[in-house]
Amino acid sequence: MKAVFAALLVFVTVSSAFAKYFPKTGKRIPQTLSRGWGDQLIWAQTYEEALFWSRSKNKPLMVLFHLEDCPHSQALKKVFSENNEIQKTLDEDFIVLNLVYETTDKHLSPDGQYVPRIIFVDPTMTVRADITGRYSNRMYAYETGDIKLLITNMQKAKKLLKSEL
Amino acid sequence: MKAVFAALLVFVTVSSAFAKYFPKTGKRIPQTLSRGWGDQLIWAQTYEEALFWSRSKNKPLMVLFHLEDCPHSQALKKVFSENNEIQKTLDEDFIVLNLVYETTDKHLSPDGQYVPRIIFVDPTMTVRADITGRYSNRMYAYETGDIKLLITNMQKAKKLLKSEL
Repeated sequence: MKAVFAALLVFVTVSSAFAKYFPKTGKRIPQTLSRGWGDQLIWAQTYEEALFWSRSKNKPLMVLFHLEDCPHSQALKKVFSENNEIQKTLDEDFIVLNLVYETTDKHLSPDGQYVPRIIFVDPTMTVRADITGRYSNRMYAYETGDIKLLITNMQKAKKLLKSEL
Repeated sequence: MKAVFAALLVFVTVSSAFAKYFPKTGKRIPQTLSRGWGDQLIWAQTYEEALFWSRSKNKPLMVLFHLEDCPHSQALKKVFSENNEIQKTLDEDFIVLNLVYETTDKHLSPDGQYVPRIIFVDPTMTVRADITGRYSNRMYAYETGDIKLLITNMQKAKKLLKSEL
């Protein structure tokens, strides 16, 4: 009996020492960098990282500003993440970054800070302010009906600017 | 027979239209924001986001610079992520951010850019350059043997600076 208790004590001690930390509110699902915009894509974490990869791989960068509690962002996310042409093109030809916070770089908000907003950046680090959506008051906004235009704009972004060197 | 083929054709068409995109190289595991430093913690994605949460929740911020292919980072990550006192304290009392790229803010590299490097930031947005580790040439570096010192430093960071207002 004593041996059983001793073994039990050792077991409890060992298992509590090795038990992983879980919040009191219960186990959480680990956060993903995709935030639902494409779990199979390789997402940059920061604008600095994205610029580094864009330059070193000579691929255009798509920066996608959104918010978790914005219904327009959520609707666009659904069609965006389920569109295979977008996902395949982004995976093969683009560097991707999605952000729920604005950066300190004002070039990423040519006509203001709003979501959802999609800005392309050339590997020369030039923001492609010329690649715009359908709405004159929010030139970099896309709605769910604008997926074809978005794909056309991705093709535009793939035509890289000539470096001036 | 024709009906079977027709049904099969419809099935194939429908299933390929609804099939999720997977890279040719095979399905990838979605990237996490924790990058292995604590899957149960709520990680900020960017320094801007982290500062926002630090100010609005009046909690100190821990910024952790590391690299996936740095053995010192990997070794520290293992003891860090498995240490329940660190994980619980971070979850309850801190805003956390881990970065594999430097930011443009020079205050986050008081004595240079190296990894692993842990910098505390007060909710007043003051970098706590006074909270240092054991190594005079890399003052914000921690090794696996320095976990107790790291916990002590976390307690220091929890004593917030007085706002000058």
